[in-house]
Amino acid sequence: MRLIVQKFGGSSVANSERLLNVARIITDTYKTGNSVIAVVSAQGDTTDDLIEKAKEINPHASKREMDALLSTGEQISASLLAMAIESMGFPVISLNGRQCGFATDSNHSNARIKKVDTERLERELDKKNIVIVTGFQGVNRFDDITTLGRGGSDTSAVAIAAAMKADLCQIFTDVDGVYTADPRLVPSAQKLEEISFDEMLELASCGAQVLHNRSVEMAKKYNVKLEVCSSLERVPGTKVKEVTRMEKLLIKGVAKDDDVVRIAVIGLPDKPGIAFKIFSMLASKKINVDIILQSIGRDGTKDITFTVPIDSCDAALELLKAEQDVLRAHSIEVDTDVTKVSIVGAGMASNPGVAAKMFEALYEANINIQMISTSEIKISVLICKDQGVKAMNALSETFIK
Amino acid sequence: MRLIVQKFGGSSVANSERLLNVARIITDTYKTGNSVIAVVSAQGDTTDDLIEKAKEINPHASKREMDALLSTGEQISASLLAMAIESMGFPVISLNGRQCGFATDSNHSNARIKKVDTERLERELDKKNIVIVTGFQGVNRFDDITTLGRGGSDTSAVAIAAAMKADLCQIFTDVDGVYTADPRLVPSAQKLEEISFDEMLELASCGAQVLHNRSVEMAKKYNVKLEVCSSLERVPGTKVKEVTRMEKLLIKGVAKDDDVVRIAVIGLPDKPGIAFKIFSMLASKKINVDIILQSIGRDGTKDITFTVPIDSCDAALELLKAEQDVLRAHSIEVDTDVTKVSIVGAGMASNPGVAAKMFEALYEANINIQMISTSEIKISVLICKDQGVKAMNALSETFIK
Repeated sequence: MRLIVQKFGGSSVANSERLLNVARIITDTYKTGNSVIAVVSAQGDTTDDLIEKAKEINPHASKREMDALLSTGEQISASLLAMAIESMGFPVISLNGRQCGFATDSNHSNARIKKVDTERLERELDKKNIVIVTGFQGVNRFDDITTLGRGGSDTSAVAIAAAMKADLCQIFTDVDGVYTADPRLVPSAQKLEEISFDEMLELASCGAQVLHNRSVEMAKKYNVKLEVCSSLERVPGTKVKEVTRMEKLLIKGVAKDDDVVRIAVIGLPDKPGIAFKIFSMLASKKINVDIILQSIGRDGTKDITFTVPIDSCDAALELLKAEQDVLRAHSIEVDTDVTKVSIVGAGMASNPGVAAKMFEALYEANINIQMISTSEIKISVLICKDQGVKAMNALSETFIK
Repeated sequence: MRLIVQKFGGSSVANSERLLNVARIITDTYKTGNSVIAVVSAQGDTTDDLIEKAKEINPHASKREMDALLSTGEQISASLLAMAIESMGFPVISLNGRQCGFATDSNHSNARIKKVDTERLERELDKKNIVIVTGFQGVNRFDDITTLGRGGSDTSAVAIAAAMKADLCQIFTDVDGVYTADPRLVPSAQKLEEISFDEMLELASCGAQVLHNRSVEMAKKYNVKLEVCSSLERVPGTKVKEVTRMEKLLIKGVAKDDDVVRIAVIGLPDKPGIAFKIFSMLASKKINVDIILQSIGRDGTKDITFTVPIDSCDAALELLKAEQDVLRAHSIEVDTDVTKVSIVGAGMASNPGVAAKMFEALYEANINIQMISTSEIKISVLICKDQGVKAMNALSETFIK
């Protein structure tokens, strides 16, 4: 008998009809002799609605109370889903974050899972119950409710699969798998049968929003077999594994990340330690820097250019402007009209021609490259925002089709 | 320093404006040097909306899952209220049923409180926190969420006041105290300064819906000082105590209970044990019988007439009809066109003229009495339903004005 963990996102459980559909997926899995633990998110817009309610009362509410409030969203969907399964005549029980043993740290609104105490889960599975678990939440050592941050339900599912040594962890969404690019933007995109953890991670951090990054990291660490599949269509999804079998596709994906701005610090003195100073300063404020470029400017000065997520832009600028005199920088410039387009694929490292082929494709599409960044399994370029979709299609035509 | 428990019902916390109003009542109490624990119900119609959602999915959902679902209503209002108090700059924390130590039995949807473990409550009060507590809920020994049944938040508040030996337990509602009769029906009704536990209990069981009966029973048992007051107007409420000081009002209240039907078992053999047989049968099905009347019928038979709550009527009839032959009853009759009107007051027992005065008042209002029931502190009559309000006014004019 296999143990399967299934995770259903907010749109999959948005209303009664969809809840009953999800209940059928779960009971079909159970009927064929599997043990099933299902992890659910809050219904549709519930979380946003609760945030709205809170803001109306207090725009600066404490994170502890926000967590207590938001955790109700998953409690509602979990008990409703249990009721749907009851109506089909199957044994079922819903458990909240505390009941299913999610111990986290006290970092409210973005807590890390420290341990999953599986005692209750095992007891319920022994009783042949289907177990419905609230995603996204746990309790800290003071018994206060914590949440794992947006997309945390993926992480909940993988953490349970790891702790229970599940045979498979299925992530159900409203797409039927992982595509080489967003099919709404790139018509030539193809669905992948398999993808490796590392490729999935690069795709996620390059803007592909299929799986939450922390969940992929955790799946890689504990070697949890993941599958991304659709809750609306019963078709095979995409398997995410440690090593994938050889495929003809060298490039696994083309991704675009609009959530990025370029900051340039111009006219710095050309002496050692400047870059270190800037980036340790940003790191101390927990600002993630992505692509970095250093170039020689005029008059023996140098320029340092880098990208940060949009929501860190103000904090980064404030910091840099406060230190501008100390840094002896001539000026600080910002460009928000940029996007990062990346190609991802594990085979890339041993194929030196990939970068050249990528730049050629962009040149032929008449797209100017502002910055370049490469890793073992990815190449990213920063380009003008309005050329993002064109770039994705050009790269998909070149590498995927 | 005094410890005050304040309970706010669903209409008092129905929206942001009202939550902020409640936050002001709490912080005003705190500012004058009191420790405050506030118990809240779910906002407005939240509980009904959740029940509706559940019914759409499964009209026969298990009580365990219903409790898990419904408990979210109070969790939402408790955290929102805490946020409102945070916005006013006061130290505050919200606790759910589990966190504030409500241990109950496993009778889902109508659980009894077994114990309140006050450790966390005391720790938060020591930290000078205002503590917001979710009413209506607790956990059983399996760590599953239970609810106390409708109106259970009153009971939660009194249970905390008893366990913490609070100096006062204030129940805030949308009326400003306990009236001698429902002022919407009876213009001559007056607000009471004080009422005894026993009188309050009789009033509640006679249809006055100010306080939940279990909460009054518990307050009497643990001698918790209760006060019923308005969350909308800052005026003195009504104190509920063990013994009230002498007042000129002999009758503390006039109440009407429409939730009643009269059942008559006609033509029973006139021999011992028949009444015992009928009522032990009804008791075995947990059907509460109120007024009972036994009369001699024709031909040496007798009739037994009694009242039951409307929602027990079908069950009672089914039971009686199944046993009709065994009982050798001639027929079974039902009358739903009845209401029970009562006068309540502790001074009644030592004032033999009260009953006569009551019957006279009803006679002069041309109201026919079908059944009569008396206790130490109350007299109830069963009359035609459409004469209920007229009877209340006649009795209020006679005894209160």
